[in-house]
Amino acid sequence: MKVGLLIIGDEILSGETLDTNSQFAAKLLNENGFNLVSRITVGDRENEIIKGLESLLNDADIVITCGGMGPTKDDITKNTIAAYFGSDMIWNKEVENELKSRYEKAGRVLNELTIQQSLVPEKAEIIMNPVGTAPVFWFNKDKKVVITLPGVPLEMRYILQNIIMDKIKSRFVADFILHETIRTVGIAESAIAGKLKELEEEIEKNCSSDNYFKLAYLPELAMVKLRLTGIGKNEDLIKTNIAKWKIKIEEQVSEFIYGYGDDELAATIGETLKNKRATLSTAESCTGGYIAHLISSIPGSSEYYQGSVITYAYEFKEELLDVKKETLTRYGAVSEETCREMIAGALKNLNTDYVITTTGIAGPGGGTPEKPVGTVWIGVGNKDRIITKKYTFNRNRTENIHLFAITALDMLRRMLKD
Amino acid sequence: MKVGLLIIGDEILSGETLDTNSQFAAKLLNENGFNLVSRITVGDRENEIIKGLESLLNDADIVITCGGMGPTKDDITKNTIAAYFGSDMIWNKEVENELKSRYEKAGRVLNELTIQQSLVPEKAEIIMNPVGTAPVFWFNKDKKVVITLPGVPLEMRYILQNIIMDKIKSRFVADFILHETIRTVGIAESAIAGKLKELEEEIEKNCSSDNYFKLAYLPELAMVKLRLTGIGKNEDLIKTNIAKWKIKIEEQVSEFIYGYGDDELAATIGETLKNKRATLSTAESCTGGYIAHLISSIPGSSEYYQGSVITYAYEFKEELLDVKKETLTRYGAVSEETCREMIAGALKNLNTDYVITTTGIAGPGGGTPEKPVGTVWIGVGNKDRIITKKYTFNRNRTENIHLFAITALDMLRRMLKD
Repeated sequence: MKVGLLIIGDEILSGETLDTNSQFAAKLLNENGFNLVSRITVGDRENEIIKGLESLLNDADIVITCGGMGPTKDDITKNTIAAYFGSDMIWNKEVENELKSRYEKAGRVLNELTIQQSLVPEKAEIIMNPVGTAPVFWFNKDKKVVITLPGVPLEMRYILQNIIMDKIKSRFVADFILHETIRTVGIAESAIAGKLKELEEEIEKNCSSDNYFKLAYLPELAMVKLRLTGIGKNEDLIKTNIAKWKIKIEEQVSEFIYGYGDDELAATIGETLKNKRATLSTAESCTGGYIAHLISSIPGSSEYYQGSVITYAYEFKEELLDVKKETLTRYGAVSEETCREMIAGALKNLNTDYVITTTGIAGPGGGTPEKPVGTVWIGVGNKDRIITKKYTFNRNRTENIHLFAITALDMLRRMLKD
Repeated sequence: MKVGLLIIGDEILSGETLDTNSQFAAKLLNENGFNLVSRITVGDRENEIIKGLESLLNDADIVITCGGMGPTKDDITKNTIAAYFGSDMIWNKEVENELKSRYEKAGRVLNELTIQQSLVPEKAEIIMNPVGTAPVFWFNKDKKVVITLPGVPLEMRYILQNIIMDKIKSRFVADFILHETIRTVGIAESAIAGKLKELEEEIEKNCSSDNYFKLAYLPELAMVKLRLTGIGKNEDLIKTNIAKWKIKIEEQVSEFIYGYGDDELAATIGETLKNKRATLSTAESCTGGYIAHLISSIPGSSEYYQGSVITYAYEFKEELLDVKKETLTRYGAVSEETCREMIAGALKNLNTDYVITTTGIAGPGGGTPEKPVGTVWIGVGNKDRIITKKYTFNRNRTENIHLFAITALDMLRRMLKD
């Protein structure tokens, strides 16, 4: 079943408000086997709303509108859609009584504007809104339906999840949908696509008019998410295929996989450390606390994460990490020698099982021909083994810091696996 | 001038990815006097892309597409839009050479898939992408233009802001638009709106059919941006009004203002420190390096920022900051006493002019009835003066960490002003 989403609101088109309702609706529909095929966003203007609605109704069986249902002047969705369906407005006693009793209970005054929410389209089924004042309208048009939701995220989410989704499910039969997300780090999108080329062809060959399959690449800085999707009638076939292809991906790019679904890299490292009953600290220079932040953002990280030193200044490197002044003068802060002494110093002074260190040039200043901006030495180590590696990235300061940090976490992930 | 936005990507419609590109584009266009009139979101399918494009071209003068420009098979925007314009694909030596030289410089291998980005539509103007591999295509159609941007947020943002916006501005005439942004910290949106109520009324009275004025409140966690906007025909009037109202705002909420435009709190603090020739370090517990990250994200921060210790574990607090075991046992880590000893220890051991410390409970675990999740002791100090303050926030882990950090930076900002 195809769903279209009509987002209505000037505040979205001006960029003042970030539209998070769409993602919520998309996920929920998807999880329930409904397929969001298009989203149209328009301003609070009659002709735009009608045009968007008509366009969505061409393709979709279900159109959900979102926004413009408030009692103030700038909210025109109710009247516009009622007019589209040639519906008169009538006073609904049930809505009025519900609003009155709710306001009375809360000891609040129901003003003239809000009570107007009781005026509803005659041709719509009226669905009460338990978390706000705007009732929801359900219009039937041939075999299709149009449902108007309020735009306030809290109301929209509550109503869609707890009331509308069930109503849609009892009216329409959904396709079966399955997603599997595999998360990789340390390999570029094009490189991973190269490794999975044959699999992609196999997936394509399995598509039919009844069942649709796809492998999508979703790149982020230093990471690529692989998403397998199956949509269609044959649940068993979809499950079998997706499971089979997931295993093929695992076989072909196993070394780059750090997690599945919503897993975060720092969280999967944390799990490994917990299982090993090992502790971790960081000694960061150029990443300036960002690695520590990524690690400590994970709930429960205090179980394995002990703390860090951030040694921007030479003196800090010397005093907190016992880096020799001579090393700094002779090789510079951004060097394998300094990186190694930082790890050794951190292992000794911070006394955790594992240590991550970084020393590099995030930019925009500080680069030289031999050590351009984006150069970094990253080290990971424990008492038995120290690994250092030089990388060169080519981004702005923020992105370089991010790339340094993700690469450092990936080096630790690999070391922990060995 | 009307702009339409075509967002292309199955990952948006499945809800897997939150579309933040739209808001970024909407804001930027708006600030430059261009009006986003519609956004259509479609999946990676040819007919949907064409349909969305045609629908937007009906209304808009400029259509920007976003997404589906990668080198992998699931990215079909390039070929689809080229076909729509009846354009053959040709090999572009300039793109090829640029990619080759960029990969060579970075010491990376340019694979077969990525080099295919050199295949471009003959009828488009080719705009190089300095932050990614997908070039941008600019198509002219009668008096309208279609511009294809990559969907990777970092690339999309960089290209739109630094390359495409200027190109659009030189091609189309916009209304005169003036924005003034004033940045505040440490006051809630409703409180600041209360203080500026009269000014808001004055601004509203000045609106006419030719010139539109507005004061918008753009709240973020712990911060509110105030944005004065004037759009219209009368450039002088707009400039005079906005300048006058800016001064009124400064008079009424001066103590909360930390900057203007794109100023970041950590950057304005950095400027003050540089002017004072003073140094800074941090000693963080619950914020886990996030304050250090905010400070070190600012280019040139190494001039005043020396480094930090992050003391998650008790032992780290004792060893690196000389916090007494007795203090920790008697008062707990989250206490004024521990906070004071952390500042004193940091001033002594890290030996910078100023120090920021935090010790609190970010959650979700670790709360008690007396010290619930969201409790934090924040301290700032120098050799003459130590200020500690307790705050209680009520958010999730990520937001609490953010609120702790911003509040700590604000405390330092106020101390530096005294």
